[in-house]
Amino acid sequence: MPVMPVRAYEPPYYAVVFTSVRTQDGGAEEYGETNERMEELVREIPGYLGMDYAGSPGGPAITVGYFRDADAIEEWRSNVEHRAAQKRGRAEWYERYTLHVAKVERSHGFERGQG
Amino acid sequence: MPVMPVRAYEPPYYAVVFTSVRTQDGGAEEYGETNERMEELVREIPGYLGMDYAGSPGGPAITVGYFRDADAIEEWRSNVEHRAAQKRGRAEWYERYTLHVAKVERSHGFERGQG
Repeated sequence: MPVMPVRAYEPPYYAVVFTSVRTQDGGAEEYGETNERMEELVREIPGYLGMDYAGSPGGPAITVGYFRDADAIEEWRSNVEHRAAQKRGRAEWYERYTLHVAKVERSHGFERGQG
Repeated sequence: MPVMPVRAYEPPYYAVVFTSVRTQDGGAEEYGETNERMEELVREIPGYLGMDYAGSPGGPAITVGYFRDADAIEEWRSNVEHRAAQKRGRAEWYERYTLHVAKVERSHGFERGQG
């Protein structure tokens, strides 16, 4: 699971917000393996900055991917292995999801003890 | 807990991404009460569209608020009760957090059985 970063990135950058609810019977093992592979792959995309994830078993999940620019998102979106995973996601793993592609205008981080 | 919407909103709109990790000893009851009050209050902001939440006890949480424009976010940010809650959050409830304010350029939703 990705570690939640404290620091915001320096704008401009993009946030890709993916909110999802899983199917009840959607092969959890293969889903997990695919997710790990996707995390490996996305790190190879030039302009990929990082990722946040939160969720609970059986509940909704939110993944936010951060990218330097729209080209980086397009490269990730059109990656062949990623496209195959998206297709399986719609066929088997997700009850529903929403994707928002957004350009970050400002951001800030807070960490306890750092004021 | 807000229900995860299927439909994306019609751009342009803003997504405010708040990722957080809680303190271990930060008064859970008052935190919950304050959160409920904030959910009530934000619904009164003209231009507030909705909210997604995902998280697990002890793990990271992500809240995404959706707003029609920057004025709506500013009104919410500067709300007096909300500012007091932010201050308590930094003093008591959050180990760390990051806030990203981002303008959504495109979005789409998927729901099983709707193709």
